[in-house]
Amino acid sequence: MGESLKGLKRTVMCGDFRESNISNTVTAMGWVQRKRNLGGLVFVDLRDRTGILQVVFGDKINEDAFKKADGVKSEYCIAVTGKIVKREAPNENIPTGMVELQGEQIKILSESETPPIYIKENLDAAENIRLKYRYLDLRRPDMQRIFKIRHKTAKIMRDFLDESGFIEIETPMLTKSTPEGARDYLVPSRNYKGKFYALPQSPQLFKQLLMVSGYDKYFQIVKCFRDEDLRANRQPEFTQVDMELSFVEEDDVIALNEKLIKKVFKEIADVDVKLPIERMQYKVAMEKYGSDKPDLRFGMEIQDISDVVKNSEFKVFQDALQNGGSVRAIKAEGCANMGRKQIDKLGEFVKTFKAKGLAWIALKDGEIKSSILKFLSEEDINNIKHVMNANTEDLILIVADKNSVVFQSLGELRLHLAKELNILKDNKEFRFVWITEFPLLSYNEEENRYQAEHHPFTMPMDEDIQYLESEPSRVRAKAYDIVLNGEELGGGSIRIHDTKLQERMFKVLGFTQESAWERFGFLLQAFKYGPPPHGGLAYGFDRLIMFLTGTENIKDVIAFPKNQNAACVMTQAPDVVDEKQLKELGIDVFQEN
Amino acid sequence: MGESLKGLKRTVMCGDFRESNISNTVTAMGWVQRKRNLGGLVFVDLRDRTGILQVVFGDKINEDAFKKADGVKSEYCIAVTGKIVKREAPNENIPTGMVELQGEQIKILSESETPPIYIKENLDAAENIRLKYRYLDLRRPDMQRIFKIRHKTAKIMRDFLDESGFIEIETPMLTKSTPEGARDYLVPSRNYKGKFYALPQSPQLFKQLLMVSGYDKYFQIVKCFRDEDLRANRQPEFTQVDMELSFVEEDDVIALNEKLIKKVFKEIADVDVKLPIERMQYKVAMEKYGSDKPDLRFGMEIQDISDVVKNSEFKVFQDALQNGGSVRAIKAEGCANMGRKQIDKLGEFVKTFKAKGLAWIALKDGEIKSSILKFLSEEDINNIKHVMNANTEDLILIVADKNSVVFQSLGELRLHLAKELNILKDNKEFRFVWITEFPLLSYNEEENRYQAEHHPFTMPMDEDIQYLESEPSRVRAKAYDIVLNGEELGGGSIRIHDTKLQERMFKVLGFTQESAWERFGFLLQAFKYGPPPHGGLAYGFDRLIMFLTGTENIKDVIAFPKNQNAACVMTQAPDVVDEKQLKELGIDVFQEN
Repeated sequence: MGESLKGLKRTVMCGDFRESNISNTVTAMGWVQRKRNLGGLVFVDLRDRTGILQVVFGDKINEDAFKKADGVKSEYCIAVTGKIVKREAPNENIPTGMVELQGEQIKILSESETPPIYIKENLDAAENIRLKYRYLDLRRPDMQRIFKIRHKTAKIMRDFLDESGFIEIETPMLTKSTPEGARDYLVPSRNYKGKFYALPQSPQLFKQLLMVSGYDKYFQIVKCFRDEDLRANRQPEFTQVDMELSFVEEDDVIALNEKLIKKVFKEIADVDVKLPIERMQYKVAMEKYGSDKPDLRFGMEIQDISDVVKNSEFKVFQDALQNGGSVRAIKAEGCANMGRKQIDKLGEFVKTFKAKGLAWIALKDGEIKSSILKFLSEEDINNIKHVMNANTEDLILIVADKNSVVFQSLGELRLHLAKELNILKDNKEFRFVWITEFPLLSYNEEENRYQAEHHPFTMPMDEDIQYLESEPSRVRAKAYDIVLNGEELGGGSIRIHDTKLQERMFKVLGFTQESAWERFGFLLQAFKYGPPPHGGLAYGFDRLIMFLTGTENIKDVIAFPKNQNAACVMTQAPDVVDEKQLKELGIDVFQEN
Repeated sequence: MGESLKGLKRTVMCGDFRESNISNTVTAMGWVQRKRNLGGLVFVDLRDRTGILQVVFGDKINEDAFKKADGVKSEYCIAVTGKIVKREAPNENIPTGMVELQGEQIKILSESETPPIYIKENLDAAENIRLKYRYLDLRRPDMQRIFKIRHKTAKIMRDFLDESGFIEIETPMLTKSTPEGARDYLVPSRNYKGKFYALPQSPQLFKQLLMVSGYDKYFQIVKCFRDEDLRANRQPEFTQVDMELSFVEEDDVIALNEKLIKKVFKEIADVDVKLPIERMQYKVAMEKYGSDKPDLRFGMEIQDISDVVKNSEFKVFQDALQNGGSVRAIKAEGCANMGRKQIDKLGEFVKTFKAKGLAWIALKDGEIKSSILKFLSEEDINNIKHVMNANTEDLILIVADKNSVVFQSLGELRLHLAKELNILKDNKEFRFVWITEFPLLSYNEEENRYQAEHHPFTMPMDEDIQYLESEPSRVRAKAYDIVLNGEELGGGSIRIHDTKLQERMFKVLGFTQESAWERFGFLLQAFKYGPPPHGGLAYGFDRLIMFLTGTENIKDVIAFPKNQNAACVMTQAPDVVDEKQLKELGIDVFQEN
C-alpha cells in the first residue's frame, strides 16, 4: 500500500510553476512521466493534468529522498516537497522549463506496473486496448485536452443560453416508447410487468410541453439514446444541446444560434464565424451538391446537362429524361489524364449508390476521349463543355437516372473525388451553411406510406399546408439544419402547435385518429390549452466537440464510449444478470433454437 | 387554427414593463390570466413567465381590437401591440402596476378550452390531476418559480466548481449491473441477447477511474436511477451533483463543499451559513439524537441513565443492561400534564421501532407520576432528574433495550414530539452539520454477512484498518455526510485506492477473489497503475432544491415526475411495446399463472 498524504497539501499544479516561484518551498503531486539517474542526480518528469515539472533529487540535496526517488518507475504516483530553483539547462519547449523542483522529501502515494499503453500524445495503439484500459488512455495529454475543451464548450453554451434567458430543465430518462423514430432502448417495469419504459431519443415532446407551460426558453444538455447498428461516429448514447423557444419564427431561432455558434468557435477554436451564415434551400443543396449537408469548402458543383443532351442518341440519357429523371455532371478539373482503371473505379463507386453507370468526357489537349463519344456530336460536346464551364485537361463525369439517384451518386462522387484528389489538404476553413425549406415528408417505398423527414411535429410552410393531403411530397417544412464542412451540426424546426393540424399530420403519416391519440394524446390534449407558437433546435454535442478538437473518431470525445457492438470493453457491459432480477421484472430471456 | 406571428416580434416580457416604457409602442405576448368587460373597455391581465401586465382595449382606442379582445377567454395565447401608458388606478401589488398597455392590435395565437385546473399559486388540486395535466400545472407561477430556482442553483454550482478547477465529464448511462447497491433498472441488449445494461445508481466507479486517469477534479450534474419501492420523496430517477477530487483528505473535501454550500444558500435563499460547519461523530449523533442525520434545530437530546438506574428493581432495565444494552431517555419540557392516552400513543409509536415499551416520569408540581413508580426509589428519581436536568412540569420518556433499538426509537420519538409540540413552528433556521467517522460496515442479519454502510469503495480510517478482518464492526470509515435540518443533503468519502486493500474489503463483504474480479476487475486492475489518493461527495440535487424552495414534495421540484408506482400519469409510461421490439431484444414477457 502506498504512503498516505497525512496532512500533506499540494501547493500548486505541475504545469503552473514559473520563475516567479523560485525559492518557494512547495509540494507538487502527480505521475512519473520518466525518471533518469545521471550519476549523483535523479531527474523525474512529474506530470499532472496541467503539464510537466522537472524534479531533481540528489544525494547532496537529501540523501533519503534521492534513494527513494531512484526507486520510482513510470506512472508511480508521488508527492514531492522541496524548493523551486532556476534550471541550469532551461527547456524552452515546456512552460515550466525555466525552473525545477529540488526534491527534499518524496512520498510514493502508489506504485505502478508497466502500463500496457504509453502515456503520451498521438498514441498509435489498437483501439481495443485503448478501450480496455480506458483509464490509462484517458491519462494521455491529448485526451485530457479534449475533455477540458468539452467541459469548456458546455460551459460557454450554458452561459450563453442562461444570459439569453433560457432555463435548463431536466426531462425524464424513463419515458414512453414512441414510433416514428429510431429503435428505442427499452427498460422493463417492475411495477407493471409486461410494460416498458423507453430511454429518450430526444426530449422533443417534453420540451414542446414546456413551451405549452409557458417556460418561454428552455434548454438542456442531455443524454439521448438510439439502439441502432453503429456506424462509424455513432454511439448508442450521445449528448444533445437541446433548446426550444416560444413566440418565435425560423429567423429568430437562426439568429440566436448564429450568435451562439460564433461565440463557441471564437472562444474555443479562435475561429471568426462571419454572420449571417449563408442559407441554402434544400432543393438548391440537392441540385448543386447532391446532399442536404453540402461541404462548401470546394466547388465541383453538379450541373444539369439534360437540356443539351436531350437530343443525343445515347439511350441511357433518353431513358432517364423520359422517365422524369435528368442527366447531370460534375467536372474534375485537370483530371483529363486520369487512367482508365481509375475512372472505372469511380464507375463502381457510383454504382453503390444505385447509379447504372458513369459516363465521362476527358478534354485532352487537341483530343476528346469519352465513354460515349459515338453518341455525341461535336455540338453536343461543345454544349456540355459550355454548361460545365470546362477547359482542356478537365474530366467531366456524368450520371443519368431518376433525380434521387443522380443527386446522391454525384454528391457522393464529388466528396469521394475531393478526398482522392486531396482538395481539402491544408484547408482550415470552417464553412457553415443553413439548409432550409426541407421537404416535410418523404415517401417510404418499403412501407408504402409517407414518413416525416424531420419528425411528425414539424410545422409545414404556411403556403404549403393546403397540399398536405393532396400532394404531400410538395409540402416544405419550417425546418433548418446547420451544416459545417459537410456534416450536420444541428437541426430544428418550428413546430405545429395546433391539435387539428397535428392530427392532420398524423393522418398523413398513416395513423388513425385513435392510434394517434393513444400514442400522442397528451400532446394533442395539451394543444387545447393555448399553446404558444414555438420552435427549437438541437446540436449533436459530440460532433461539435469533434470539430472543435479536430478529432475524427467520436470515441475520442466520449470518456467511456461503447465499441461497434455497443459494448463497453472495459467494464464488460452489457452483462448477464441474476435470474432473480429478471423474475422481478417479469421477463424471460428468449431461447433461440 | 390560431393566427401566425408572420414577422411580429415580441419587444419585452410582460413582467418587465415599467414607467420608463411609457409612450413606447410595444408588442407583448402571453396568456390571458383573466378578462373583464367593463362597459366600453376590455381589461386583460396578460401573463408570461415574468409576471402580469394589464392590457386595456377600448372601442375608442381601436374598435376591431376591442371586439376581438372581448372574445378571448382564460388561457388564450395572444399577442398585443399598442402603446404603454400610465395607469389611472395603479396596482401597487405587482411590479408592472404603474402602467398598462393600450391594445391597438391583437392576434389570437391559439385558443384554450377551460383548463381542468386553475392557473394560480398554491393550487389545491388532487395530485393525480396535477400530474395528468402536468403542462398546465407547470404553467402556475409557483411551479415556474421552482424551476427558475432549480436552473439558477445548478448554474451557481457549476460556476463554482468550474472556477475551482473542476471539469464536468459525462459518464455512461448504459453501464454494468453491480451488486451491493439498490435494485438496478435494466436495459436489454440487442447485440448480446440475454445480456443487460444497467442504468447507473451513481457514477461512482467511473469518477474513481477518472481520478486514476489524472483528471484531478471531476464533477457532473447527472441523472441516477434506483428501482426501489417509492417512499414519499423518492423518485426512480433523480439528480446528483457528483464530484471527485484527487490528492485530498476529508478536510479538503469538506472545506471546499462548505464554500459551495455557503455560496448557494446565500445567492438563492439569502441565508448566511456560518463556516466552518459544525462536525459531529456518528457515534455522538447516534447517542444524542438517535440518528445519523440529526435535526439540531432543537434540543431534547437523548441522555444515558443506565448508570443511575442500574440498581433499580425494574426488570426491563435490568434485562437491557445485562444484555449489553442501555437505558436512555429524553425530556419533553413542560409536558408533565400530557394525558395518559397521549402518552400511550407515544408508547405505540416507539413500538413501531421495535422498542418493547416506553416508561415515563411526569414531574408534576409536588407530585411525581410514573409508569414505573413502584420500581424507583426517591433517590433513583432524583438521580434521573439530575442527569436529565429536568424540572417541575417536565416529562421524561425512557426506553431500555439493546442500543440500536434505544437509539432509533428515542431518535424517532424526539422528532415525533417536536412535530406534535410544534417546536419548529416559525423556525427559519438552516442548521447544517457534518456527520463523520461512520462505521465502515454493518452486519446484515438476514444475509448473515457484513455489508458496506456507504459503499464498498470507502477508505477505512488509518488506525482501524488493522481490525478489518478481526473486528469489522469496529472499523470506522473516512466518510462524511452533510446534514441539514435532519435531512441528508449529501455524502461522500475518501476512497480506497489500493488493489490489495480493495480486495480485502471485498473479501470482508463475502466476495471470493474470483467474484470480486469478475464484477470489479476493471477497478482493481486500474489501481495497479499509480492511482492517486482521492475522495468525493455527491448531493441529492432534488432534495437541495426542496430546501431552497421550501417545498415538501419531491414531485414539485421535478418537471415530469413519476407517481408512487413509478408511472408517468401524463404520458402513460411505462407502456406495452410491439412484440417485434421484444423479439429483437430476445426477451419474452413472463406469464404468471
